[in-house]
Amino acid sequence: MRILLIGAGGVGDAIAKIAARRDFYELLVVSDYDESRARRTVDWIAAKHGDDVAARFATAQVDASDPEVVASVAREHGATHVMNAVEPKFVPSIFRGALAAGADYLDMAMSLSEPHPTEPYAETGVKLGDDQFAQAADWEQAGRLALVGMGVEPGLSDVFARYAADHLFSEIDELGTRDGANLVVRDEAGDEIFAPSFSIWTTIEECLNPPVVWEQDRGWFTTPPFSEPEVFEFPEGIGPVECVNVEHEEVLLMPRWVDAKRVTFKYGLGDEFINVLKTLHLLGLDSTTPVRVRSANGPVEVAPRDVVAAALPDPATIGPRMTGKTCAGLWVTGTGTDGAPREVYLYHVSDNEWTMREYEAQCVVWQTALNPVVALELLATGAWSGRGVLGPEAFDAKPFLDLMARAEADGGYGQPWGMEDRLAR
Amino acid sequence: MRILLIGAGGVGDAIAKIAARRDFYELLVVSDYDESRARRTVDWIAAKHGDDVAARFATAQVDASDPEVVASVAREHGATHVMNAVEPKFVPSIFRGALAAGADYLDMAMSLSEPHPTEPYAETGVKLGDDQFAQAADWEQAGRLALVGMGVEPGLSDVFARYAADHLFSEIDELGTRDGANLVVRDEAGDEIFAPSFSIWTTIEECLNPPVVWEQDRGWFTTPPFSEPEVFEFPEGIGPVECVNVEHEEVLLMPRWVDAKRVTFKYGLGDEFINVLKTLHLLGLDSTTPVRVRSANGPVEVAPRDVVAAALPDPATIGPRMTGKTCAGLWVTGTGTDGAPREVYLYHVSDNEWTMREYEAQCVVWQTALNPVVALELLATGAWSGRGVLGPEAFDAKPFLDLMARAEADGGYGQPWGMEDRLAR
Repeated sequence: MRILLIGAGGVGDAIAKIAARRDFYELLVVSDYDESRARRTVDWIAAKHGDDVAARFATAQVDASDPEVVASVAREHGATHVMNAVEPKFVPSIFRGALAAGADYLDMAMSLSEPHPTEPYAETGVKLGDDQFAQAADWEQAGRLALVGMGVEPGLSDVFARYAADHLFSEIDELGTRDGANLVVRDEAGDEIFAPSFSIWTTIEECLNPPVVWEQDRGWFTTPPFSEPEVFEFPEGIGPVECVNVEHEEVLLMPRWVDAKRVTFKYGLGDEFINVLKTLHLLGLDSTTPVRVRSANGPVEVAPRDVVAAALPDPATIGPRMTGKTCAGLWVTGTGTDGAPREVYLYHVSDNEWTMREYEAQCVVWQTALNPVVALELLATGAWSGRGVLGPEAFDAKPFLDLMARAEADGGYGQPWGMEDRLAR
Repeated sequence: MRILLIGAGGVGDAIAKIAARRDFYELLVVSDYDESRARRTVDWIAAKHGDDVAARFATAQVDASDPEVVASVAREHGATHVMNAVEPKFVPSIFRGALAAGADYLDMAMSLSEPHPTEPYAETGVKLGDDQFAQAADWEQAGRLALVGMGVEPGLSDVFARYAADHLFSEIDELGTRDGANLVVRDEAGDEIFAPSFSIWTTIEECLNPPVVWEQDRGWFTTPPFSEPEVFEFPEGIGPVECVNVEHEEVLLMPRWVDAKRVTFKYGLGDEFINVLKTLHLLGLDSTTPVRVRSANGPVEVAPRDVVAAALPDPATIGPRMTGKTCAGLWVTGTGTDGAPREVYLYHVSDNEWTMREYEAQCVVWQTALNPVVALELLATGAWSGRGVLGPEAFDAKPFLDLMARAEADGGYGQPWGMEDRLAR
């Protein structure tokens, strides 16, 4: 296996660092629009693991917006797999470039949606991934695989869905991805500050898009933002967090391969963060349309959303000042294999102090990066194989969860996942 | 009486329009940094009341930040009274300029405060009006009057305090100014929108400054912002509004002339607005320190608070799309003149549809402008007289309230005030 990793931002950097501890591939090319970022990642690996490990890495410059460039960099390095780790707006170009180069493809976020022109909060318009699924026949004919949505959410959550269907339930009522954290960021003086662990710009985009829900009788439909609030109890000391519907890939992926009556995604934004997003929207500060503002050099035009991002601490810098855990998981309800009502929460928790110490990566970013590396290893060993455009739930979940949980000393990733049975049985 | 009005913004414009219906003065000079704004006001008066009325008006250009300029414009027009209707940051220069020109002076907001350097939320630093009271001896020696805080709040609220002390109570426990409204602004489609009826920039300043409270035993002290929330019931259909402590002149003025155990000011911001202000503070968007932000023309530096103001509708433009009433008043508790416990709310209500129709002025602005005109008329007729730096409560309240309430046909302003007895007696 020869991997072209596109993007050496937070997640791309962590993918390379996690892969550095594995030996299932011949070559991993870390590429970025700014090649010095790729170089920094490989330098870190050389310093941590020595030159022998670093010898399996290379760097490249790439323009992810151009399919021709993507294809040519992939061909140049004889890439068998293209791993997309950049912003979702580049999905279409990397997706096309990989196929043109005859490589398999993986991503962690799918092609973007567009709201319904007249009923945005009731009906779907262009859905997440529609553009990719429309090209499924090309991938099938070429005998190539595009494994889409293979991060943590989507990704691990979808693996859990397949696991629940195959091993835990005879009938599933709801597949509900539930994501929550108890991360706290402090300033130099040790006082808690408001500092999102991910880009506020992207969070606004994600949370103010109409959330999508799937039901057996209705298919896909949308709701107003922040709909169906619920307090979900997260494990390992995180505790109760207010969750609301958010547009996310799981809802588009799971119903294609797993039988269920309802599929949802709820994000544990918490009361404070939900209130912040609603207030920004109320004041028009979520807008990306520039407004005219006075400045010391006369009137200028800036987008309010850019100013909100600029006024907050840079998420890339807060890792060392952050404590707490983030939890990704799937809450499943229905009828167990024994015919009795069952409710389980399948989850994986990532602790920021550990990920910072081991990888100099913030936990939310690191947890995302872990899963595509596991998937690549399963593809390398042949434990997973397929052709066409497939989600993680199209594959057997057991080898994935086993490899992830097994101790490093025994050839695994040493990342146990958990399961809570939530009904007295 | 020859009046130099400084400032032809919202309140200055309304002062001139209200004065145009009265004949207690010889000349009213409307001045502004931008003389065309003054011209627009006088043109409106000419169109509405004819050339005879407009003949008693003139316009002038003035730089309110320069005491010499203020004095020279006042002398040029033989001004006997300088009426300050600009932002409070210009109080020191206009105050000095008026005295230098030998004119009496009125304002509606006092010289600004500075927080205590180490205990901002417990102790006062420089208080509102300190700078003006420090010069009281100069005014007394010159035999001139500075009537400070003579708008609606401060202003009418202070008149109510004196009225309560002289006519309603033998002992006062609390003098609590309480301000609330039920104003609603709609967009072109008729949907309710978030659009403050006053500058968000100034409101942030006012509401995030440490609120000041006065108590007989402690003197003046401060609290954290938004302290002591209470739901106050406003009259004439406005109903219950959440009110919190805010720094305001009444608390600095009333204890100097009226006996009470406690003096407070609470602003009926309402839950939504309080939440907006708290959220802006949480995100650092109240800051006036520029941040670096991307723009179509490269990075620029803008103050987040300026961007918040720019993203909201201009308060000067929303009058025609606003409905509802604003209420200014004083809640007084203590012992009545009959020796029984007493609790009254003295108030004046202004209806936006009426002020727009009669004056093309938004109700909050118009209500502020009404009171200094009444005061000027009392000074012109000799019903009020004084020397030194005095608040409205230094004068007999009865002539003020009578002149304001009396019908226009009978020589009054046709603006009745109300009193609610809030204890069963």
